[in-house]
Amino acid sequence: MYLERISSPNDLKKLDTKELQLLCEEIRFFLLEGMSKYGGHVGPNLGVVELTVALHYVFDSPKDKIVFDVSHQAYVHKILTGRKNLYDIFRDRGAKSTYQRQNESEHDFFDLGLTSTSISLASGLAKGRDIFNNSETIIAVIGDGALSGGQAYEALNNAATQFDGKKSNFIIIVNDNEYSISLGVGGLHNHLKALRESNGTSGNNVFRALGYEYIYLEHGNDVTKCITTLQGSRAFDAPLVIHAHTTKGEGCHFAKIDPPKWHSVSISFDTRSGEFQQVAKQTKTVHYAQVGAEYISQMAGKDKAVIVILAGTPVLGHKFAQQHRQQCVDVGIAEANAVSFASGVAKYGAKPFVFIEGTFIQRAYSQLLIDLALNKNPAVIILHGSGIILQDSTHYGIFDIPLISHIPNLVCISPTCETEYIMMLDWAYEQQFPVIIRLSRDHNASMDRPRSAIAPIELNRYDVIRRGNTVAIIGLGIFFAIAIEVADTLKAHGVDVTLINPRFYSSLDKDTLSKLADDHCLVVTIENGVRECGWGERIAAFYAQSEALDRALTVLTFGADKEFADWVPFSELLERYELKSDKIVKKILNKIAKARR
Amino acid sequence: MYLERISSPNDLKKLDTKELQLLCEEIRFFLLEGMSKYGGHVGPNLGVVELTVALHYVFDSPKDKIVFDVSHQAYVHKILTGRKNLYDIFRDRGAKSTYQRQNESEHDFFDLGLTSTSISLASGLAKGRDIFNNSETIIAVIGDGALSGGQAYEALNNAATQFDGKKSNFIIIVNDNEYSISLGVGGLHNHLKALRESNGTSGNNVFRALGYEYIYLEHGNDVTKCITTLQGSRAFDAPLVIHAHTTKGEGCHFAKIDPPKWHSVSISFDTRSGEFQQVAKQTKTVHYAQVGAEYISQMAGKDKAVIVILAGTPVLGHKFAQQHRQQCVDVGIAEANAVSFASGVAKYGAKPFVFIEGTFIQRAYSQLLIDLALNKNPAVIILHGSGIILQDSTHYGIFDIPLISHIPNLVCISPTCETEYIMMLDWAYEQQFPVIIRLSRDHNASMDRPRSAIAPIELNRYDVIRRGNTVAIIGLGIFFAIAIEVADTLKAHGVDVTLINPRFYSSLDKDTLSKLADDHCLVVTIENGVRECGWGERIAAFYAQSEALDRALTVLTFGADKEFADWVPFSELLERYELKSDKIVKKILNKIAKARR
Repeated sequence: MYLERISSPNDLKKLDTKELQLLCEEIRFFLLEGMSKYGGHVGPNLGVVELTVALHYVFDSPKDKIVFDVSHQAYVHKILTGRKNLYDIFRDRGAKSTYQRQNESEHDFFDLGLTSTSISLASGLAKGRDIFNNSETIIAVIGDGALSGGQAYEALNNAATQFDGKKSNFIIIVNDNEYSISLGVGGLHNHLKALRESNGTSGNNVFRALGYEYIYLEHGNDVTKCITTLQGSRAFDAPLVIHAHTTKGEGCHFAKIDPPKWHSVSISFDTRSGEFQQVAKQTKTVHYAQVGAEYISQMAGKDKAVIVILAGTPVLGHKFAQQHRQQCVDVGIAEANAVSFASGVAKYGAKPFVFIEGTFIQRAYSQLLIDLALNKNPAVIILHGSGIILQDSTHYGIFDIPLISHIPNLVCISPTCETEYIMMLDWAYEQQFPVIIRLSRDHNASMDRPRSAIAPIELNRYDVIRRGNTVAIIGLGIFFAIAIEVADTLKAHGVDVTLINPRFYSSLDKDTLSKLADDHCLVVTIENGVRECGWGERIAAFYAQSEALDRALTVLTFGADKEFADWVPFSELLERYELKSDKIVKKILNKIAKARR
Repeated sequence: MYLERISSPNDLKKLDTKELQLLCEEIRFFLLEGMSKYGGHVGPNLGVVELTVALHYVFDSPKDKIVFDVSHQAYVHKILTGRKNLYDIFRDRGAKSTYQRQNESEHDFFDLGLTSTSISLASGLAKGRDIFNNSETIIAVIGDGALSGGQAYEALNNAATQFDGKKSNFIIIVNDNEYSISLGVGGLHNHLKALRESNGTSGNNVFRALGYEYIYLEHGNDVTKCITTLQGSRAFDAPLVIHAHTTKGEGCHFAKIDPPKWHSVSISFDTRSGEFQQVAKQTKTVHYAQVGAEYISQMAGKDKAVIVILAGTPVLGHKFAQQHRQQCVDVGIAEANAVSFASGVAKYGAKPFVFIEGTFIQRAYSQLLIDLALNKNPAVIILHGSGIILQDSTHYGIFDIPLISHIPNLVCISPTCETEYIMMLDWAYEQQFPVIIRLSRDHNASMDRPRSAIAPIELNRYDVIRRGNTVAIIGLGIFFAIAIEVADTLKAHGVDVTLINPRFYSSLDKDTLSKLADDHCLVVTIENGVRECGWGERIAAFYAQSEALDRALTVLTFGADKEFADWVPFSELLERYELKSDKIVKKILNKIAKARR
């Protein structure tokens, strides 16, 4: 057992080639055991065992600095840098990150989790190194999938000329496992294939074109060959690209057969068969994205002008792409291009529906603002998985409301239930301006109502579900469910409140809000997003600016704290943010009591 | 005179080769005359005269669709498509755009102005075309400078495989004039040079690598050769890159000598000498960016760890780069890379100062959020030219406050005057967290105070300049000047107001705000940015949520409307938004009168 002896990269350097090979086998077994219990990025990590062992064998971390793009593939790095005990890496995502974290180890230089940034960050480190006249090696490890993101190219372009003819000690390892999260796409994907198939010799080498030295490493899962290649890198002065061919899911037959399925799993599985061991869910929730997929498929069947645009995440499943081949475009991890491309599609008169995970819209703000909103082209953007979520801090989904809702011409809506989501898809399909539909990840099916029970959608109008007095509760999107709970509890306390589903969060229904001032003294907003700078604060600001100085209407806003929550369970977050109906009711009753005093 | 005969591209098709050459000369003369009077993008447009004439000669716009990247080089296109009368293009930027505009002509398919989007938009049009089974040609014209932006690459990558082996009728024209806005940078810049110098034959062709057919056109300023090349494009099935070598400023000796200087000018000049004819300025204003440049230069001289990072705009002038070669990095038009690179530099222990034009931070939100703010790396980002501004709608600078101020860990400040700006640079230099310094374009020098008269900067504390009662005026950044005017006028009306310079806009000084509630009934906020979702509304929301239900404190917020203002003069915008002290005073007096009734 060699793994037991490794508590830092230095321990690695004591092993010989044979022992390193055995170590790799142990690590792969250890990884698979861990991931089979707790989930994780199965394929990516099994693929980089040898490469990571070789990196830590040849280089001298943390003096030499390795930056893993996204760092979803950094489990092996974690194991080799003192984080192998107690299944630290996978066991409890509420307690421990799976990505690189500065506070975990001196071998982690950044808190990472989003794609295509590693070359920027590594070249920044190299600039710092050079200004202080140091000379250690700086390394970025980036997957072929992440190379579809524009920032990777911006950094490739710049780092190529950064070292000004001096010895660079700068290496970019392209970890080419032939897949993105989903299937690889685009011209570069084909180019990497051509390089692989020619053992790195095919012409028009894009890396050489940009000014890099280039080495092809066919056997990226052979630790000896990895070591030899990395040792050879010292001979190069110019920045160097090592194109390493690895196999996603190496050493695990089922992961190798279906790499998209095994990119990342969140439930336990059998290590021999790959069969999922479904954990009984505590509440009956459905994924909104899945709910919409079936309906979008119907829409696409009826109207060939419906074009679905995806950005690397296979949210509609492969069935959709197979059924509607001409009507489905996956641009890869390239959200900026996805949004502008959609603007072009809409301008031509077709009807694009772009599916982007809520947090990833952070990559396409400029394109929303200019190419879509200024141009008023009627694309529909569906942000799925937005809001408070058990996720890595780099993926925390609470910021998109203030990020987007100040954009002119952009209409943003959020449904309270599945049926209303379908209504919003229908509504958005008809509009001649861009529409954002914001979905949370899970959706409580018990909230659902038949279509006949839901008022038709009217632009920028709130849906007043129940008209009472004294207190108005406005719950946006999925958190309308909390608003109902609050209203029902208050009724039991003898307070007959007004209950509102606002639907729209890009502008206020000032008419409805103004009327509330007549016979209400308190307005309560509940949103599934950051409270500060959020949607509820705009309603609060509306009342603070209202005409009558003698008004005494107060607003209570509920939402997430302005923070990056890191793998905190959903229920714990609701507790932290006081997004529980009992807490909210208590606060409301206090306010009313004060007002009556 | 051929130009007189051209009112649409069809008229062009009646001319023979000799006549087209003469037309090009006329257009160049016409352009230079116009630009010499009204300013404009001199070099870029002089460079594309022949290429644009050839495009409209060979193709059939608007059926065939040409998308110009940025469209700063589309003056010739405008002239040829019915917009040559009365110097429409340049004469009055308040009335007419210099960029492409859908409402001007059926030959303009998008409202454009930002870089690196044309391939995305054009490939979207092509997808629309294909779904409707049409077959016209779609063309993107993109400069070598714009190719440094990541989105251009994302779209190049995708469009390469979009047509699935079918005839694409899709052309990307790389208009290579050897320059970005400033000097060209990066690996691609060198690669294009190698292609030029080898007449397009040098190995490792990056466009071929991605899957494009490729033609090199050395004589991009020879209309006959342009026409022959474009006509030849019909022979290709795969998407095609035409790499056209043009000369920035062709036909104008002084523009050719100093392309960065003549990229864009905003004042009139002599067409023979190129001498600027300085227009007497109405008010004494200085550019904040210039003010800082000298000081940053001193800082860099004292501390070699100070690294200035630029993103394509030569805001500090070339002198800085010459004096501090190792301490100045221009990443080209690649804001995302600039911010992440800065995070890397800061992580290593050096001190990056990133200069980005306010509106362009829209390209780097994700990098601010994750690579900088989540990682808490102490880079300083200076947003210059933010706020209400006479600019193209695509560059309107009012959105950055709501875009950025919700980001955790990011401290945002804005100075009221030059001296305070220098103090903020000093302060930011000392901090161990990321800092944004927000500057407007112009700065009224009369506002300036000596350093001894300005209170030291304290994190998240407002500077209470004058403590009065009844009304508090809080003016952010440059608009503090309006707050002073308002306060002085109110004093003449017998109202002794409180006057506050908030400095920080990323969080509220709740202590100071709470104390105001004791003896004030009205708080007024004035900001140089969008009012809805802006900084003032957060202060309004603070009071609406305050504890006492019996409070009667009202807030008046002043700022820009949620709109894209297009070349509207600054003074007209202030009028439109009621950002004039007399208007504000009137509203305040009304409020007070109501309260006393």
